[in-house]
Amino acid sequence: MNVQPRTLSGFMELLPGDQILMERFMETLRETYSLYGFTPLDTPVIEASEVLLAKGGGETEKQIYRFTKGDSDLSLRFDLTVPLAKYVALHYGELSFPFRRYQIGKVYRGERAQRGRFREFYQADIDIIGDGKLDIVNEAEIPAIIYQTFSRLGLERFQIRVNNRKILNGFYDMLGLREQSGEIMRTVDKLEKIGGDKVRELLMEAGVSEEKAGEILRFIGIRGENSQVLKALESYRGKDELFDQGLEELGTVVKYLGAFGVPEENFAVDLTIARGLDYYTGTVYETMMTDHPEIGSICSGGRYDNLAEYYTNKQLPGVGISIGLTRLFYVLQEQKMLNEEAGTAPADVLLLPMTEELGPAIELGTRLRGEGIRVQLYTEPKKFKAKMNYADKLGVPFVVFLGEDEIQEEVVSCKDMVSGEQTKLDFSSTVTRVKERLAANRRQRVIR
Amino acid sequence: MNVQPRTLSGFMELLPGDQILMERFMETLRETYSLYGFTPLDTPVIEASEVLLAKGGGETEKQIYRFTKGDSDLSLRFDLTVPLAKYVALHYGELSFPFRRYQIGKVYRGERAQRGRFREFYQADIDIIGDGKLDIVNEAEIPAIIYQTFSRLGLERFQIRVNNRKILNGFYDMLGLREQSGEIMRTVDKLEKIGGDKVRELLMEAGVSEEKAGEILRFIGIRGENSQVLKALESYRGKDELFDQGLEELGTVVKYLGAFGVPEENFAVDLTIARGLDYYTGTVYETMMTDHPEIGSICSGGRYDNLAEYYTNKQLPGVGISIGLTRLFYVLQEQKMLNEEAGTAPADVLLLPMTEELGPAIELGTRLRGEGIRVQLYTEPKKFKAKMNYADKLGVPFVVFLGEDEIQEEVVSCKDMVSGEQTKLDFSSTVTRVKERLAANRRQRVIR
Repeated sequence: MNVQPRTLSGFMELLPGDQILMERFMETLRETYSLYGFTPLDTPVIEASEVLLAKGGGETEKQIYRFTKGDSDLSLRFDLTVPLAKYVALHYGELSFPFRRYQIGKVYRGERAQRGRFREFYQADIDIIGDGKLDIVNEAEIPAIIYQTFSRLGLERFQIRVNNRKILNGFYDMLGLREQSGEIMRTVDKLEKIGGDKVRELLMEAGVSEEKAGEILRFIGIRGENSQVLKALESYRGKDELFDQGLEELGTVVKYLGAFGVPEENFAVDLTIARGLDYYTGTVYETMMTDHPEIGSICSGGRYDNLAEYYTNKQLPGVGISIGLTRLFYVLQEQKMLNEEAGTAPADVLLLPMTEELGPAIELGTRLRGEGIRVQLYTEPKKFKAKMNYADKLGVPFVVFLGEDEIQEEVVSCKDMVSGEQTKLDFSSTVTRVKERLAANRRQRVIR
Repeated sequence: MNVQPRTLSGFMELLPGDQILMERFMETLRETYSLYGFTPLDTPVIEASEVLLAKGGGETEKQIYRFTKGDSDLSLRFDLTVPLAKYVALHYGELSFPFRRYQIGKVYRGERAQRGRFREFYQADIDIIGDGKLDIVNEAEIPAIIYQTFSRLGLERFQIRVNNRKILNGFYDMLGLREQSGEIMRTVDKLEKIGGDKVRELLMEAGVSEEKAGEILRFIGIRGENSQVLKALESYRGKDELFDQGLEELGTVVKYLGAFGVPEENFAVDLTIARGLDYYTGTVYETMMTDHPEIGSICSGGRYDNLAEYYTNKQLPGVGISIGLTRLFYVLQEQKMLNEEAGTAPADVLLLPMTEELGPAIELGTRLRGEGIRVQLYTEPKKFKAKMNYADKLGVPFVVFLGEDEIQEEVVSCKDMVSGEQTKLDFSSTVTRVKERLAANRRQRVIR
């Protein structure tokens, strides 16, 4: 030994049980996204800096892992949107539009290390890219997919919040504050954290008149059921074209969200949501865990008009949303919301041969695997107690013994590690018994 | 547009159809490895250079992507074995041994760019790590899992070649050539490429006497069925303890490989195989595609005595094997061995609403998805022909239409895009029809 082993801070490295839950988490995402016709994509972690940073500047650039190798100026991707833009521009002629893709991959940001902040983390993105145009229905389908995804994961108490940037921009147009709308929205975004009075104060410091600050607070104060909010917004109609267009879109999205089967309690029109400033142009989303607002949005996105303007002159509008997977998993761990009953063992059966000759045990393992049962063959020459301890530590639900007697009688001894019950049944009855338990585990969701 | 989009050379970026096959490829690996009780693992792509390069020196070091960020000297992993060694040493107290893990992840080597060589590529590794000891049966199970894996992928014409380093080292002991055995094995390794005479010449240039060179060539020339090779090796027994031990092990591995159900044509004892020099200590493996020996080994590994000696004083012997996934996929693409009939479409059904009101179509999509059918809802306001062209380009097997008539009659119009046949059936009959096709696709293997 000459080096102390360690993992860099800000890099998640899970123990086996948690990793199995994480895999199931990702599997659920892949399955759900696939059900809606999204195709999987995988792009390099490393890109030419010139390509990755085409947009240039900004807060992100400082955080980027950038280095040279030979003559090449390289960077690690910091999100999955820029690589998507590159991909779509590069392979434009070989893709069919609307192009729906999901990507689950690691991204890198050299943020200041702190608890719950990661420098390497998974993002899970879905996007729908149109060629020139993209129908508004997609803007309702995206949050509906997120609803499905979280439901399948087992999360119940969450709310997808929806707004439309055109409504906001239109509203600030009406007040003659469009120029300052960026700054105003940044301030308004803090409403939940700092409260209305403080927001008013900051707005006035920024040069907004008291009257207009009041108008803004009244506007973002519109609350209630979705139909009530939409009704309240109707009173602003007819004053600004952009606003009217946004209101139309929002109404359509809300209507179809219902059609897509998203219950009212899981989505809400929220006029305080703006998201980033220069990217989103229409519908925007955030997703809050109802019992943990302090965590912030666990899934965000929106509609944009021009995905790949740095790489192509084609107009490629789209809508997308992203789950910060690593952070969400970390939060669920912290909140003890991961459901270990969904299964954390690496095998369903630990198979212990009780004879010198291993042939029959090996054959039994092969037959069990043929039934889709995960079997670990254990042949280390240890004492019986050590073997059972091992089974316990792995958390396998069943231990199967195969000795001379069992081989003679053509039966299998199978111990249920939870109930302690041990049976001596023929092969197919044993399979049935094991599979019943597995089906029960399978019904468990990852999140409790 | 201000930057030409491009992907770095040496970095694989697949088009959607191929990516779907790659995903299915990986899914098959995950499933098969899981059936044998391997637990998934995920470690950071970035590690502290000091940790990753603890072993130091060597050919690899020049290829490593190494850089600084802030005060940190960082490197991208160049394989999955060093991160495993770190992981096991770091989390030793929290793991149960034998510890079986699989990992499918990207690794980085800044090799000279050339066709078919990748700088970013997936490795798919399985390893079994013991604490102090590890039973020999594991050394037969590992190639048996590889046999299963390739079979499930659809590959038939391949051969896993097995040898044992103790036999080689023991043999060179007998000849008094142990000191030179490293160089000799490197030369012998070229036998298939350069032929016997050239090997003899090189051996003699390296100072091996003509007589001993003849002995070596006779030894590595031992061929035939596994039982014949083992029998021929028996004639060397009793002269060197290490040799005898290796022969014992090889005999056991061959015996159990049969028990694990690996057919004779898919594995062979091959005395020319040595693998790396300072790492493997017992059984070693290579896997050749029978019809493409020029590609070299597509899956290699072996037994080692000390996984993590740079990080811990614990003795952690193990056995493992690795598939170079990206390269293998590339070769299969080149050889036109990828089976598109396994399904390359992002959806099973393209759903075309033929009414203004989308509610019924959205609801139908939800019901179809409930049956596990992947449905893309298409609502772009295009001409009918453009919609059908889109379905064609995506390669979806079915298009479903829902117009006023269908809604009234409570039926679904469903067009089979292969046969052209269009049916008007109730929901459950339509589901049955679609599912039959999907099951047929599902039975197709990724490799033809």
